[in-house]
Amino acid sequence: MLFFGAVKDLNPGKVVSRKSKLINPYLIREQSMLTFEAAPHQGVNNIIEKMTSLPFQRVAHRIASLDAQPSISNGIFVVVTGELLVDDEQNPQRFTQAFQLIPEGSTYWVLNDIFRLNYG
Amino acid sequence: MLFFGAVKDLNPGKVVSRKSKLINPYLIREQSMLTFEAAPHQGVNNIIEKMTSLPFQRVAHRIASLDAQPSISNGIFVVVTGELLVDDEQNPQRFTQAFQLIPEGSTYWVLNDIFRLNYG
Repeated sequence: MLFFGAVKDLNPGKVVSRKSKLINPYLIREQSMLTFEAAPHQGVNNIIEKMTSLPFQRVAHRIASLDAQPSISNGIFVVVTGELLVDDEQNPQRFTQAFQLIPEGSTYWVLNDIFRLNYG
Repeated sequence: MLFFGAVKDLNPGKVVSRKSKLINPYLIREQSMLTFEAAPHQGVNNIIEKMTSLPFQRVAHRIASLDAQPSISNGIFVVVTGELLVDDEQNPQRFTQAFQLIPEGSTYWVLNDIFRLNYG
């Protein structure tokens, strides 16, 4: 029996990031895929280029839910939902982001990454 | 280079399902995991029991986005967002559901399944 669980009641804290910190190059590989608002990107350079070209300077995330399950080949399947605010925007946008993490040594890298804003 | 893409502009059609049709037993195995609103369920009987005990009779889904990527071990990584209406409810609820599909013969089964309603 695998253990899997959910972080149900995260504190509604906010994490504010500069755009340049949104992507950690140590977590991506040439096989890594990012589908960002329907547009596909693959590989270290393409993913970094996409994330650094986003039209804002900083973004605040409020995580509403974070669920994880063990997955195939000792990977981890992760789904995050929440809200984000870019720059001086006052109206938060809901988002969903899901990842497939692959083990490597004592760490993991991101094979699959799908990001969506959740419009009404 | 892997192909991966997104179904960006789905017709805003609605799919109405009876509760008993929400889960397809042919797509789940004993290893299958479902995290439904933070609660973990594993195995065919547990997942069917959860889905058939939901407190409504029918549900209408409107799919807003469906993104898929090839994943490890020839799997498929899928994220769906949209809205749902249960029974005679008038106010739709936004949801996110993500899957890791595993190939078997000419079909796939669901190893990972995470479902969340997206509250404001």
